[in-house]
Amino acid sequence: MHTTLVISKLLKKMGWCLCKCRPSLSTFSSLLYSKTSSLPFPSTFLPSSSSTTTTPSIKSNIFSSSISSFASSSAVATGTFTWEDVFRISQSAEEEEDNNSSYLHGYFHKVQLCNRGSGKQSEFLPFVIEDQTVGFIHSGFVEHFKSFSDVFINIKDNSNGGSIGECVSLNPMLKTAEERTSAVAYVIKCLGEEHIPGIRNELYPVVSSFGSRVLFSLERAAAPYFGIKAYGIHMNGYVEIDGQKHLWIGKRSNTKQTYPGMLDHLVAGGLPHGIDCKENVVKECEEEAGIPRSISSRAKPVGAVSYMDIDGYRYKRDVLFCYDLKLPENFIPKNEDGEVESFKLIPVRQVAEVIRKTQFFKPNCSLVIIDFLFRHGYISPENFGYLDLLRSLRIGYCS
Amino acid sequence: MHTTLVISKLLKKMGWCLCKCRPSLSTFSSLLYSKTSSLPFPSTFLPSSSSTTTTPSIKSNIFSSSISSFASSSAVATGTFTWEDVFRISQSAEEEEDNNSSYLHGYFHKVQLCNRGSGKQSEFLPFVIEDQTVGFIHSGFVEHFKSFSDVFINIKDNSNGGSIGECVSLNPMLKTAEERTSAVAYVIKCLGEEHIPGIRNELYPVVSSFGSRVLFSLERAAAPYFGIKAYGIHMNGYVEIDGQKHLWIGKRSNTKQTYPGMLDHLVAGGLPHGIDCKENVVKECEEEAGIPRSISSRAKPVGAVSYMDIDGYRYKRDVLFCYDLKLPENFIPKNEDGEVESFKLIPVRQVAEVIRKTQFFKPNCSLVIIDFLFRHGYISPENFGYLDLLRSLRIGYCS
Repeated sequence: MHTTLVISKLLKKMGWCLCKCRPSLSTFSSLLYSKTSSLPFPSTFLPSSSSTTTTPSIKSNIFSSSISSFASSSAVATGTFTWEDVFRISQSAEEEEDNNSSYLHGYFHKVQLCNRGSGKQSEFLPFVIEDQTVGFIHSGFVEHFKSFSDVFINIKDNSNGGSIGECVSLNPMLKTAEERTSAVAYVIKCLGEEHIPGIRNELYPVVSSFGSRVLFSLERAAAPYFGIKAYGIHMNGYVEIDGQKHLWIGKRSNTKQTYPGMLDHLVAGGLPHGIDCKENVVKECEEEAGIPRSISSRAKPVGAVSYMDIDGYRYKRDVLFCYDLKLPENFIPKNEDGEVESFKLIPVRQVAEVIRKTQFFKPNCSLVIIDFLFRHGYISPENFGYLDLLRSLRIGYCS
Repeated sequence: MHTTLVISKLLKKMGWCLCKCRPSLSTFSSLLYSKTSSLPFPSTFLPSSSSTTTTPSIKSNIFSSSISSFASSSAVATGTFTWEDVFRISQSAEEEEDNNSSYLHGYFHKVQLCNRGSGKQSEFLPFVIEDQTVGFIHSGFVEHFKSFSDVFINIKDNSNGGSIGECVSLNPMLKTAEERTSAVAYVIKCLGEEHIPGIRNELYPVVSSFGSRVLFSLERAAAPYFGIKAYGIHMNGYVEIDGQKHLWIGKRSNTKQTYPGMLDHLVAGGLPHGIDCKENVVKECEEEAGIPRSISSRAKPVGAVSYMDIDGYRYKRDVLFCYDLKLPENFIPKNEDGEVESFKLIPVRQVAEVIRKTQFFKPNCSLVIIDFLFRHGYISPENFGYLDLLRSLRIGYCS
């Protein structure tokens, strides 16, 4: 079933609907759920007179940086809020009972932000190599390949009379992974930043499922344009103080190309070609938070989340392997690669409130933190929608 | 997609096939995966001369109690093995590397044991109340309802010209939950032990999804014959000794009606009408393991597993809410209701080996323990099939 349909059904079941027009102002949650970016600031969320100086930053995050940016393929979200905003919201008085029927709405909304546009799946053609579907390419984007018939071919029908229909493949002359990697890289170079912005010169393996043979490797920034599965690791770094768990949260540098200024995990990263998850966690721990191998090697794999997000020509099919690392109380993270502005240690219950009430977090971090909340007992079956939310963390191709 | 197909595909991908004939004796795993109960004892698992006295018990468990019992609707699995057998297997030398491609096979097999017969879904008719599908009833079982037209009705077509096709419903004269409960109870009483064995006089709520309105209540033993969703709680009780986690494992009483003598969680139970998960955990903790509320109230909800199992006229659609309870090192469980023969504290890695290599555990416990192994880092993305196994823990109707 299409993702949007699944989420719409879940939300409908909980008394919500996908709202594209001006919603009721009765609750903060319903406002956040709206996709309209020109809404007035919700009255239930107006700051007290003592904190007026920070109002614009919150407002711009919720409605400008998050909602409008997420809705546009070219826009980049900007987190113009401050840590002060984060802490105020995380500690704001909670009027709702956590077992009332709307308690999980804010989480559902975050899942939805990672799973847009599934109704548009039919606009994409399967990208097939050696009879395995490794991706999906928008029929509009396929037009760019017309001048590159020595690399890409269109298959109108399955010659065996089967049912695969129209799909995109690579020229059968390209037999080895190396030949394919090099030929596709040439096309990507020709298309350039105009068609594939943000080229990083970092290769992702192209596989039909995790652990299967690598058919070729592809520039990371191009992955969504080819709809290939991208794998990553996200690590929740936490500390237990007097029996209460706290999460180390990063705020991305304002100069980051993607999601500048937004909240992030202590450690996260894509899984490039040629490195396994465990080694990647250790490597990213060192680079992103200055965590030495003696500590990072204790990080535990704890599951995975997945999502599929269609946005224009981009079809993201991401699987994030989740890790937990319990850190010593006295450990202070230190970013080594300039990608993080600062870190703060925040009680898990307060992090949960930030996830529920704002869009301060880089969207896919929300999924991994919601997964953490499930596994550590912060969401319970008494919360209406428990099983629906749990299932929604693995929408898409978790394989 | 049908469950069997899904699992078959996963296993095929890993180089396995669903084997109904005499399998190769080359590996212990492939033998365990067979459904044939008349196989010779595997040579790779022959006991040493010093332990011949325990051979019959292991043999009878693996091939008689587990495989043949699980394959028959009337048979009840019997755990005629001893704790000595459990410990020997749990500590047996591990020849396989945990990152080789077959390491997860034993776990996949346990998932399969809980998800049989999905190819037979078409033999069942939807059981619909107030336009909600609450269950599935075998067309053969529906025959029993012919003398009870004041209670059950067959709907051949949707009068609105829709697509629901043939289904079973309750007589529309039965308007309230109480009227339905009482009328269906009457039919179940008339059908008696011959058609619905093991009647317990314990009511389960009938709902379309967890938390939705209870449409009526049904005798627990009848639930699979009506294919209604049954919910339960399973709790992993663990202790941390010198940084190593150990699970408290129960061995069911040999006089238990179901799965006598088999291994079980410290605490588990169905979720009857009128009690929420949290309270049920506290209640079962007291009854099954003598855990006082002061400790059991710390049990954490950590997710859910689900499975669907078709066996003759029975269609089990179970969702188990998983709980973890970290117990004090000096706590010794004590069964209060006579349903547990004894408890043992076993290092998690050894419990994992028992799950992988035997069928000593009550089948659905395996799923919950595999979920524990995922959440606590005992299975890692480097294990081939990681994502497939993770997904397989929520087959069926996890709602």
